Amino acid sequence: MSLFNKHEQTIRKAIEALHTRTFFAAFPEHPSPAVYGETADADGQARFKAQLGKKFEELLQENPASWIGEEESPYLQEKLDITYPSFPVETLIDRARKAYHVWRKVSPEQRAGILAESLDRMKSRFFEIAYATMHTTGQGFMMAFQASGPHAADRALEAIAAGYEELTRFPQKAFWDKPMGKFNIQLNKEWRAVPKGVSLVIGCSTFPTWNTVPGLYASLVTGNPVIVKPHPGAVLPIAIVVAEIQKVLKEQNLDPHICQLAPDTSDKLITKELAEHPDVKLIDFTGNSVFGNYLESLPGKTTFTEKTGVNCVLLHSVQDADKVAANLAFSVSLYSGQMCTAPQNFFIPEKGIQTAQGEISFEEFAQKFIDNLNSLIDNPKAGPFVLGTIQNKRTYDRIAEAEKLPGKVWLKSRTIAHPQFSKARTATPVVVEVNADKTDIFSKELFGPIALLIKVKDIEHALHLAGELARKHGAISCGAYTTDKGVREKIADEMALAGAPVSFNLVGGIYMNQNAGFSDFHVTGGNPAGNASFTNPEFVVKRFTWVGHREPAVA
Amino acid sequence: MSLFNKHEQTIRKAIEALHTRTFFAAFPEHPSPAVYGETADADGQARFKAQLGKKFEELLQENPASWIGEEESPYLQEKLDITYPSFPVETLIDRARKAYHVWRKVSPEQRAGILAESLDRMKSRFFEIAYATMHTTGQGFMMAFQASGPHAADRALEAIAAGYEELTRFPQKAFWDKPMGKFNIQLNKEWRAVPKGVSLVIGCSTFPTWNTVPGLYASLVTGNPVIVKPHPGAVLPIAIVVAEIQKVLKEQNLDPHICQLAPDTSDKLITKELAEHPDVKLIDFTGNSVFGNYLESLPGKTTFTEKTGVNCVLLHSVQDADKVAANLAFSVSLYSGQMCTAPQNFFIPEKGIQTAQGEISFEEFAQKFIDNLNSLIDNPKAGPFVLGTIQNKRTYDRIAEAEKLPGKVWLKSRTIAHPQFSKARTATPVVVEVNADKTDIFSKELFGPIALLIKVKDIEHALHLAGELARKHGAISCGAYTTDKGVREKIADEMALAGAPVSFNLVGGIYMNQNAGFSDFHVTGGNPAGNASFTNPEFVVKRFTWVGHREPAVA
Repeated sequence: MSLFNKHEQTIRKAIEALHTRTFFAAFPEHPSPAVYGETADADGQARFKAQLGKKFEELLQENPASWIGEEESPYLQEKLDITYPSFPVETLIDRARKAYHVWRKVSPEQRAGILAESLDRMKSRFFEIAYATMHTTGQGFMMAFQASGPHAADRALEAIAAGYEELTRFPQKAFWDKPMGKFNIQLNKEWRAVPKGVSLVIGCSTFPTWNTVPGLYASLVTGNPVIVKPHPGAVLPIAIVVAEIQKVLKEQNLDPHICQLAPDTSDKLITKELAEHPDVKLIDFTGNSVFGNYLESLPGKTTFTEKTGVNCVLLHSVQDADKVAANLAFSVSLYSGQMCTAPQNFFIPEKGIQTAQGEISFEEFAQKFIDNLNSLIDNPKAGPFVLGTIQNKRTYDRIAEAEKLPGKVWLKSRTIAHPQFSKARTATPVVVEVNADKTDIFSKELFGPIALLIKVKDIEHALHLAGELARKHGAISCGAYTTDKGVREKIADEMALAGAPVSFNLVGGIYMNQNAGFSDFHVTGGNPAGNASFTNPEFVVKRFTWVGHREPAVA
Repeated sequence: MSLFNKHEQTIRKAIEALHTRTFFAAFPEHPSPAVYGETADADGQARFKAQLGKKFEELLQENPASWIGEEESPYLQEKLDITYPSFPVETLIDRARKAYHVWRKVSPEQRAGILAESLDRMKSRFFEIAYATMHTTGQGFMMAFQASGPHAADRALEAIAAGYEELTRFPQKAFWDKPMGKFNIQLNKEWRAVPKGVSLVIGCSTFPTWNTVPGLYASLVTGNPVIVKPHPGAVLPIAIVVAEIQKVLKEQNLDPHICQLAPDTSDKLITKELAEHPDVKLIDFTGNSVFGNYLESLPGKTTFTEKTGVNCVLLHSVQDADKVAANLAFSVSLYSGQMCTAPQNFFIPEKGIQTAQGEISFEEFAQKFIDNLNSLIDNPKAGPFVLGTIQNKRTYDRIAEAEKLPGKVWLKSRTIAHPQFSKARTATPVVVEVNADKTDIFSKELFGPIALLIKVKDIEHALHLAGELARKHGAISCGAYTTDKGVREKIADEMALAGAPVSFNLVGGIYMNQNAGFSDFHVTGGNPAGNASFTNPEFVVKRFTWVGHREPAVA
């Protein structure tokens, strides 16, 4: 049985889900022993620990120039001392160029089968990837498992499905028969989906697999060899994925350099050299806007970016203010605000918020928000695990600076003890009230657990500000609370125009930060927060060129 | 009955044809009285003549700043003296901006119906458009009718179909029901296809409707208001199309400024001012590479270009050299080489071409080519009508320069008498033999009836040159003749990599210049000849943004 046959049903279900956009997940998100096996957690943790202080020798990339690595655990605040094989850029490009002519000739079916198989292999290492993610990104275990494991694998499968669908959307051959009156012109036609060339996928430090696999799998399924350049601070999780892809390629007697890892270190980054190389035709990037804009401006490349945005919450009217405050407190705390979808600016009308129990004032709502934050933070069974740790020192410093912003500090950030890791770099959210005229302050992304409460005249004022921010500075998510249908549609329309998806009236166990494969488009491409979207048709069709040849059917 | 219901069957058939890529045409290409009516030709010619020397008053754009026009007939070599309403750029943009908020709220069905209806109206004016095209572009009547009439309308319908398909590819609403173990998270989700904004479509002087309507209809069907900026030398054909669109819009009580005409004159072009305006989000362009590259480099725009390429013919082995020479002679002569798909460089092996009757030498084949050119040119019933006239003086001058190229001039260009137009600006093809090492000469597009015969070592040499030219300088078409399957596949593969579609072994009544809607992708987007393709999914999906909103199903 071919790998395509083995995985065909999953791929077809994934394509169907892309179109119905109803709930679908190929990989169970709950790390339960019943699903993943009794020993899976312990085995994964053991494998992770066994890797510490050693060379990562699973990659099928020979003759490295050196072994490098600088990852550090935000839980232990010490180096992982794992090193990865490093190669000169020209070696990486040469190998990718050769691999291109192998991979492009592999059929879409075979490619999809190989890639789906690699996700099965990845699945067997979800726990190891989870620990690797915890100790590089600082995420709590549950998020590390879900985001880097099943959710990432689902996003990868989504890219396989979307790519496979586009590649098979037009026939390989057709008979074209044109009546001309007395005779017919008859042509045999054929179409080839020509992959664009070497693809560079640049990872980020906070979501090393989730944000990397969509571009990686989208480029691979459409026939492009990929060089994965991870963030030097978060290599291991994606190194495991690349290793598994390489193993499946080798088993299929294909060149493992179809997918290469290109680690570097922060004192000698190779991203620009790779990106500017004339043979690199495709670039995927997650990270800061300055570098993203530079990449987008490179001529002769097709670039897919997720940059930064400023996410807003608009409060107008709610059923139950406590539930709303609890939901938002969780959103701000989740992975200490280090999600690109985390809310930052909370627009609250100066006249307060309408609730089923009557109006509550700006101050009352702010206090509810603070109370919910404190109760989450101070819950030793929840706080440390929801907050996780702070990935890097720069984010940590930014939190301290936020307390100096001109405005009332409603809540100071503090460190909390982690029950398992005494040296964990933690920081709870800081909440500052900022005047609505201080747009220079709240029109920047303040990455990390930083929430700004902004008193606005009314919902129109809030919507005007939120729309402007999204249009000018980008937005990846938006939260809105209103029980008024007219207001809801105004927000839905205005934020859609600004390319920002809105989560309305979320309470309970679902948060505006969350984003589901096969249903939610992640980043819309319609504002400065990024030019690409996981996974709309554009995300795959731009990776190859349709070329048609023709010839008379009767010579 | 809604306009969508009226045209639904046609739109569905068009979508089907896009996928089967078998022969489909909604508009009959033959200008026969049986199809278009006994008086259609005479009526169309009369309407065209009645327009000469007058204001074009059909547009529903009020209060022009002035009336301008400079079109000139290459058949009469005199001014048409037609003037069109001219507006300041800010007026055009203001009106488009307002129209955006009307048009974006019209459903995809309604939009598709309105646009399909406009094509029916256009059909009733095919003859008038044909005469307008003849007397601006210099095309022969038959090409002017086909290219500007039915073939253009088919390309427009293709864009409507492709756009409508993409807009309806994802659901407007879905119920998302995620099992969480003890409970389910249930969300109502909705998706909106948000049009990007004001669209600028820039026309060219040689195919004023065929090259304009794909971008025009693709932008309109996806909800973007369009400003059509025609080439000042070829306004009338597209002005008629815009007027018909405006009339249908008005009948539907919609703002006619959803589609505006923005004529200018060559001494005061407004293209850059329009293109650089921050409100212009989409740009379609057909024309020279320098301007196309400038447009592509503008930040914050989504740009679709068809620029220039260097089209090659590779000769290896043929069944019948006479039929091949006849086919190529016609290709070079059709509209005097002023098609973006016309062949320019003919690579002929120094050892000659294998035929079913034995090998013929370079010189023998060259002579056959010249003989066929002469016999076509000198046939008074064919030559003048196939060649048409030379659109502008610059092309005319380029022909004279070609005769000074370093190499044997196999055929000089000459003027021929046109039986109907004594002042017609005609020029027959010039054929020059150029050394294979003179790449600087044949790596440029020599627009017009200019053919270069290039003696190459062998087919590998030819293929290397053709591939390099396509990759570096672009190619929109390619001809190849070989009876060897292995050679055929080598050419098919190498030219596909260079993004150039190959017509193999064409003889008889089909030519490499020709390109069929619903089946042939026009320009691939895969080489410097252009970044867009009529009509692949990319051509429509890049014109709007998918934005999804969500809300708990149970509050």
